[in-house]
Amino acid sequence: MANFSEFQPLNETTLIEYIKSIPSLSSKLANNFSDITVKEVGDGNLNFVFIVSNSSGSLVIKQALPYVRCIGESWPMTKERAYFESLALKEEGKLCPEHVPEVYHFDRVMSLIGMRYLEPPHIILRKGLIAGVEYPLLSQHISDFMANTLFFTSLLFRSTTEHKRDVAEFCGNVELCRLTEQVVFSDPYKVSEYNRWTSPDLDRDAEAVREDNLLKLEVAELKAKFCERAQALIHGDLHTGSVMVTPESTQVIDPEFGFYGPMGFDIGAYLGNLILAYFSQDGHADQANDRKGYKEWILKSIEDTWNLFHDKFTGLWEKHRNGAGEAYLPAIYNNPEVQLLVQKKYMTDLFHDSLGFGAAKMIRRIVGVAHIEDLESIADAGKRATCERRALNLAKMILKERRKFESISEIVSAIQQF
Amino acid sequence: MANFSEFQPLNETTLIEYIKSIPSLSSKLANNFSDITVKEVGDGNLNFVFIVSNSSGSLVIKQALPYVRCIGESWPMTKERAYFESLALKEEGKLCPEHVPEVYHFDRVMSLIGMRYLEPPHIILRKGLIAGVEYPLLSQHISDFMANTLFFTSLLFRSTTEHKRDVAEFCGNVELCRLTEQVVFSDPYKVSEYNRWTSPDLDRDAEAVREDNLLKLEVAELKAKFCERAQALIHGDLHTGSVMVTPESTQVIDPEFGFYGPMGFDIGAYLGNLILAYFSQDGHADQANDRKGYKEWILKSIEDTWNLFHDKFTGLWEKHRNGAGEAYLPAIYNNPEVQLLVQKKYMTDLFHDSLGFGAAKMIRRIVGVAHIEDLESIADAGKRATCERRALNLAKMILKERRKFESISEIVSAIQQF
Ligand SMILES: Nc1ncnc2c1ncn2[C@@H]1O[C@H](COP(=O)(O)OP(=O)(O)O)[C@@H](O)[C@H]1O
Ligand SMILES: Nc1ncnc2c1ncn2[C@@H]1O[C@H](COP(=O)(O)OP(=O)(O)O)[C@@H](O)[C@H]1O
Ligand SMILES: [Mg+2]
Ligand SMILES: [Mg+2]
Ligand SMILES: [Mg+2]
Ligand SMILES: [Mg+2]
Ligand SMILES: [Mg+2]
Repeated sequence: MANFSEFQPLNETTLIEYIKSIPSLSSKLANNFSDITVKEVGDGNLNFVFIVSNSSGSLVIKQALPYVRCIGESWPMTKERAYFESLALKEEGKLCPEHVPEVYHFDRVMSLIGMRYLEPPHIILRKGLIAGVEYPLLSQHISDFMANTLFFTSLLFRSTTEHKRDVAEFCGNVELCRLTEQVVFSDPYKVSEYNRWTSPDLDRDAEAVREDNLLKLEVAELKAKFCERAQALIHGDLHTGSVMVTPESTQVIDPEFGFYGPMGFDIGAYLGNLILAYFSQDGHADQANDRKGYKEWILKSIEDTWNLFHDKFTGLWEKHRNGAGEAYLPAIYNNPEVQLLVQKKYMTDLFHDSLGFGAAKMIRRIVGVAHIEDLESIADAGKRATCERRALNLAKMILKERRKFESISEIVSAIQQF
Repeated sequence: MANFSEFQPLNETTLIEYIKSIPSLSSKLANNFSDITVKEVGDGNLNFVFIVSNSSGSLVIKQALPYVRCIGESWPMTKERAYFESLALKEEGKLCPEHVPEVYHFDRVMSLIGMRYLEPPHIILRKGLIAGVEYPLLSQHISDFMANTLFFTSLLFRSTTEHKRDVAEFCGNVELCRLTEQVVFSDPYKVSEYNRWTSPDLDRDAEAVREDNLLKLEVAELKAKFCERAQALIHGDLHTGSVMVTPESTQVIDPEFGFYGPMGFDIGAYLGNLILAYFSQDGHADQANDRKGYKEWILKSIEDTWNLFHDKFTGLWEKHRNGAGEAYLPAIYNNPEVQLLVQKKYMTDLFHDSLGFGAAKMIRRIVGVAHIEDLESIADAGKRATCERRALNLAKMILKERRKFESISEIVSAIQQF
């Protein structure tokens, strides 16, 4: 029998030993280890993910190793991230159980999470977007997730005492925050060994990003917000690769970058990745499918996501207006006129934050270290570069001009003009 | 011999027992307890302060009790504040030793700090301002304190790793943060049993504050910044009662409200209290002294403080531009044009924050729970109300219009117009 009192990376054999030793895991398989199958499916950048199943049930084991998986041991990264992922999964699961996989087990020594297996036909949303699949409930679901997780962890709902306690705890996830600072807010704007882009097509475009003073001014403001502003518990990596979907179900996974940060970082990550999916469609169009209708659906999803989020978030605010939240005390903000004023300002600021962070996330996916399959899978480099350039130019414009936009429909119009 | 292994409020007798038991304290008195004198001098709102001296030396003992001194046991307040005060004193002392009293000893169980006695002729700056005394070095000194403590604890100098570690630690000072939230950002804008003002003279003025929607909108933004934005280690209570002075020396005491918050809160507290000192002068003028010259000196101090702070702070930034600070990486911000852009934006935002917080601090001193001697000592209520109304009206205007001001000289002009 193996000894799991010290950290060790699991393989398909030791994994089974491990599960046997943990009742909350082995019970998912009805303690039956004769017909078991194990599959490592981690396609993410950082961690190992095993699907374990038999005729009675299934589960997923996610383990963090002390480095970045897609780079290797040369890029060390604390395995403590698994602790923060489990914390965030549990908190998000409490706030939005319909859209977060249940956590069965967490082992801090082993940096290991046992959770619900999101069984087929669940696939990663990004893959669905590349395949051109429409998800009729997606915007409803993801706006639910964002509204619930962000509202209920903000000072609109919480007391300062609860807020500062949780802020302090998640300060421990600093290594993952630093990774974001580097790859989102810094590397794309300087020469870095990790940066890459479709070359030589985008050589001048990448250089232009590095030489754009106004862009650097704006990205500095966003970086400061990311580092300093503990507005709510954010997922921290809410791109379309962190969402698994079927036509009926939407599940948010992988909050290992979770911490108390600016809400707009999550909303922007999701919207920015939808916009990238939109611009990649022309690269996937062929004679059988021109993708025109699908592009319309993506645009509608962008618009619906923000509008639904807006309505749900302000709805929660309205509902809990007399609760324990300490930001807007009822005795001060108890007249309809001032309520309207503060809500308008809050939501407008959040909209502009979301646009800024979304644009920064788009830029980094085109000229930074981590690219996305939506664009990478366009085999023809010339075609890919054209898609990427349009997305990049839109993102640069939004990052600089975001405060001029008053509604998401104006963003949709801008997308169509690029 | 008394037992100090559990908390107990000290009196003039047990205090001596305590000092005897602590070598780093008794050594300040050359271990000589025959000619000792003890005087309790706490004139602050919260704590007990004892001056202990003999022919060989002296020291100050400050002890926090688990309630607010000026209100009594009916307003409980964690005595853990002494821990954060000692942390902040030590950190500020490292960054700016010329202007912070040395800490000799800290005892967490006893909530007790032993520190340098700021011997006569040191007096509380507020008393000097009431007496009409000019301090030729004050603006130089206080701008040193602000520039050093704020710059070196910000992400302009620190790495994210250091920053998040210290942010987490100071999250523990949440009770004191909540007190500020209540008395600065909430109570003045609602009916509260603690509020008071010169009545009936200012009844309508106080009511107008409670009914001013635009003011409430602005103060909500500042409150959110106070609660969410961990920009630097701030003193948290930097009014003119937290500064002791002689013509040659300036010493900042009492950082028990210290935490990672917005820099503008400190700068604003100081400037706002100078402005209040200015408006109180007419109440102190008499035939012997019309205070006209002194008012000019206060205006000059306001202007000098900001301008000196600005130059010192940007000077430190320039000097440490290639250091470990992670906000503006040299590889990105290495051209003079973008440097100018980011610095201008940073300092303008900080200026507007400072004006906003300063105005909020002025308002709360006129219609909130804690008033200031500058105004309270004007015996004639009518005269006092006139001074207070001018200050209040200026503060309301600044809070709403602060983004229109581009330099401190414009603020000085505005002061002269009210
Ligand atoms: N609970 C789950 N159910 C099914 N598949 C999962 C589950 N969690 C992760 N996966 C699969 O593993 C991949 C990587 O997981 P993820 O949590 O994103 O890891 P990483 O942190 O390395 O990005 C996902 O893209 C998905 O395909
Ligand atoms: N180190 C010191 N040297 C001399 N006097 C001091 C010292 N510290 C405090 N005092 C005196 O005690 C008073 C209260 O101290 P302070 O730290 O402001 O307490 P509180 O937190 O209760 O406001 C000060 O106004 C000052 O007169
Ligand atoms: Mg992932
Ligand atoms: Mg991940
Ligand atoms: Mg004091
Ligand atoms: Mg005080
Ligand atoms: Mg104090």
